[in-house]
Amino acid sequence: MNNSYNHSLSANTQLTQKSANRCFNGEQHYYSHQSTSTKTPMTFSIYLPDEALAGQRCPAILYLSGLTCNADNVTHKAHFQQRCSELGMIFIAPDTSPRSISTSDNDDAVEVPNDDRYFVGQGASYYVDATEAPWSDNFNMQSYIVEELYDLLRSEFPIETIGVTGHSMGGHGALLLGFKFPGKFVSVSALSPVCAASESAWGQAAYTEYFGEDKSLWSDADASKIIEKVGQQYSSILVDQGGADDFLLEGQLQTDKLQQACEKAKQPLTLRYQGGNDHSYYFIQTVINDHIEHHWRMAQLS
Amino acid sequence: MNNSYNHSLSANTQLTQKSANRCFNGEQHYYSHQSTSTKTPMTFSIYLPDEALAGQRCPAILYLSGLTCNADNVTHKAHFQQRCSELGMIFIAPDTSPRSISTSDNDDAVEVPNDDRYFVGQGASYYVDATEAPWSDNFNMQSYIVEELYDLLRSEFPIETIGVTGHSMGGHGALLLGFKFPGKFVSVSALSPVCAASESAWGQAAYTEYFGEDKSLWSDADASKIIEKVGQQYSSILVDQGGADDFLLEGQLQTDKLQQACEKAKQPLTLRYQGGNDHSYYFIQTVINDHIEHHWRMAQLS
Repeated sequence: MNNSYNHSLSANTQLTQKSANRCFNGEQHYYSHQSTSTKTPMTFSIYLPDEALAGQRCPAILYLSGLTCNADNVTHKAHFQQRCSELGMIFIAPDTSPRSISTSDNDDAVEVPNDDRYFVGQGASYYVDATEAPWSDNFNMQSYIVEELYDLLRSEFPIETIGVTGHSMGGHGALLLGFKFPGKFVSVSALSPVCAASESAWGQAAYTEYFGEDKSLWSDADASKIIEKVGQQYSSILVDQGGADDFLLEGQLQTDKLQQACEKAKQPLTLRYQGGNDHSYYFIQTVINDHIEHHWRMAQLS
Repeated sequence: MNNSYNHSLSANTQLTQKSANRCFNGEQHYYSHQSTSTKTPMTFSIYLPDEALAGQRCPAILYLSGLTCNADNVTHKAHFQQRCSELGMIFIAPDTSPRSISTSDNDDAVEVPNDDRYFVGQGASYYVDATEAPWSDNFNMQSYIVEELYDLLRSEFPIETIGVTGHSMGGHGALLLGFKFPGKFVSVSALSPVCAASESAWGQAAYTEYFGEDKSLWSDADASKIIEKVGQQYSSILVDQGGADDFLLEGQLQTDKLQQACEKAKQPLTLRYQGGNDHSYYFIQTVINDHIEHHWRMAQLS
């Protein structure tokens, strides 16, 4: 461990610090902890600006990653650190799902169910609490994010308010959790989100596994349906979508359904189709500063 | 292939485009080609701002990566794209060495010598032309960079001037090639460079393999010795070094030798020790904009 400035974990912390790297006027940290929601160890990254390292409460952004990702992708490739350093914002990136731990070098090996399809199982989850075996034992990512991790972050770091954002499947998670739990978050945005999981091929495959045939559970886990149901919750939400995104063109994202839901809900939506951009982190880095600034402004107003 | 704007390769190009992703006001591209210097396929990444995609000549930065890296590390983690987009600069990242190609899915498999130590062989090279077997057949990275790739880049992309920079072993490469071939480059900078390869443990292990016992070859491939020998070549050079860099503390980098060489050579040097920063890409992203701006200013003056 090197270069850790002032931040101290609580005396009885559940967190184990895995790394700390100085980055702009702040530090990029990684932590792991044993989760009661998923019954596995979970890892997250957190960027702490110097204000937070010195104990001053800062607004935070919770970023939910997309299919196949873990905390590394966004932490390495989204380029959020500079603007968060400049504004004094905390940026948190959890993993997308519980993971099995190899038996080769660990006596407390954990076996978590998986699926050959990359949009179901480890690296997926859709940030829901699964009700069907074998998923329901570990795939409780809604509870993990909005209860367990949420409380842990608030107890261990000087967090003032939390906004939620995410990419692709994680964009769906941000819209879903932001509107199911509006008391937990002060702002919502999304990058290239899946907008209606229960109506996309990816989401239908996942929800068949996680929820079985009970379509009321599917609707309760569909971001656009939830927005339409609960109505306006935020003064505005920001969504960026690449205009040359193959997944948009093949119908996985259904941005139009989000637009219709926001109209019905009278939820102000800034929806930007960015011509020429695709689904990659090259797009995310291009617009991430606008999302950081959106959450920062909403935090100031809250 | 998606989203390629206007750039066209020459009619008889040796380059194969591997990818193109829109990123800020420009595109991140990857190319591969068969190298006559290394007798292997070589891959590089190039960021082209819209000015370059439209055929307008732009200043370019050639970034030489450090040990164990390939073009991906800097392209994903250094966060250069935004500032290069804003200034209209091209950013080029070659691989660190020739590589073997697996026989499993390729009839034209290439076998390149390697070494178990990560600082010799594939992922290393020090950007020199090796004289000793088995390295001398393929490890001709000096010729690859300053002749073959240099000419290829100039013929295929609208490059106005080229500045050279790099990290760690690649920082040594930038200093070495910048001062051995000052007619090729308009500017030099380095991030956390190895400053005197012939006097560090890493470099001595590599040069024993690449050059054998002829110490005159070692001196000709030592950045600080070359700077002292050739004297001032640039109005100033910029070097950033993390103050909490373990490799500095264990003597691999020897920044003091660069400082002494520049003093003797009357080569103006801006050397910044950045307290708390380590050797990682979290440090590189923290200072990369200053390096981009250094090369941009030098290009304007040239």
